[in-house]
Amino acid sequence: MARLLGIDPGLRFTGWGVVEVVGNRLRHIDDGVIATDGAAGVPERLRALHDALAALLREHQPDEAAVEETYVNRNGTATLKLGYARGVALLAPALLGIPVTEYAALAVKRAVVGTGAAEKAQVQAMVRRLLPGARLRRADAADALAVAICHAHHRASRLAWAAGVRMA
Amino acid sequence: MARLLGIDPGLRFTGWGVVEVVGNRLRHIDDGVIATDGAAGVPERLRALHDALAALLREHQPDEAAVEETYVNRNGTATLKLGYARGVALLAPALLGIPVTEYAALAVKRAVVGTGAAEKAQVQAMVRRLLPGARLRRADAADALAVAICHAHHRASRLAWAAGVRMA
Repeated sequence: MARLLGIDPGLRFTGWGVVEVVGNRLRHIDDGVIATDGAAGVPERLRALHDALAALLREHQPDEAAVEETYVNRNGTATLKLGYARGVALLAPALLGIPVTEYAALAVKRAVVGTGAAEKAQVQAMVRRLLPGARLRRADAADALAVAICHAHHRASRLAWAAGVRMA
Repeated sequence: MARLLGIDPGLRFTGWGVVEVVGNRLRHIDDGVIATDGAAGVPERLRALHDALAALLREHQPDEAAVEETYVNRNGTATLKLGYARGVALLAPALLGIPVTEYAALAVKRAVVGTGAAEKAQVQAMVRRLLPGARLRRADAADALAVAICHAHHRASRLAWAAGVRMA
């Protein structure tokens, strides 16, 4: 059994979702969205994001984390702000020694829907089907659960491959 | 008296410099560069950067911090990586409740050399003149001290202004 935390980071809204993998079955544990105060300074917002992620990590004690490489804006300033949030999302689990993997949006769609060309609505529908208990109060939470599902798949094939190598 | 930490962040090299302000005089305390292992994963590198900054903050106990808004690359991936490092640089002091201010590269050059059109070499020469004890083993450390000097100037005018308001 393994507990996985998926994160879809953003400075304004960061989606998160926790799933449990038992054998080849997935179970929904919890999901939600961390919002930071748009009127506050960037350092304070990063601190709020870090503190909220640290609280989630303490509460759910995931074994591994996965972070979505979300859309890269053409606008340099927007990309930098996304970078700030993603930096904090990658750092928070790393500070606790929890392995973190990054997945491109394309890989997430492919793992969840079966094609990298999937629409956002298709991803959400598949997340609901795969994880019946999911609340998904915002799209960001669905995206975070999708990253967690993607990580569960990649992890399973990696483990299967490792098992095969050991048997040889 | 106030102790200021300047940071010029980057995922590969992060320059840092500590200065002390006594009245309108500046004194060099220390400077250096934090390097992260290019062969390591991004989460591990961000953790190394965070841990090094946290150690510096513990050692030098600055009252305030200032971070340079360095060059925004046209390349989205490079900008994101810079964003990761800057996010961690803004977060580390914020986690300790230390106020952090961001300064555009232009504002830093203007404060140190007198013009935003200054060359990197002019900035370094002025940093050496203003802070005779500086080691500046890498250009990044000079840039970090330049941000600290810039913050000292802005801070002084802010304090003078605040004093004027209070007197009125």
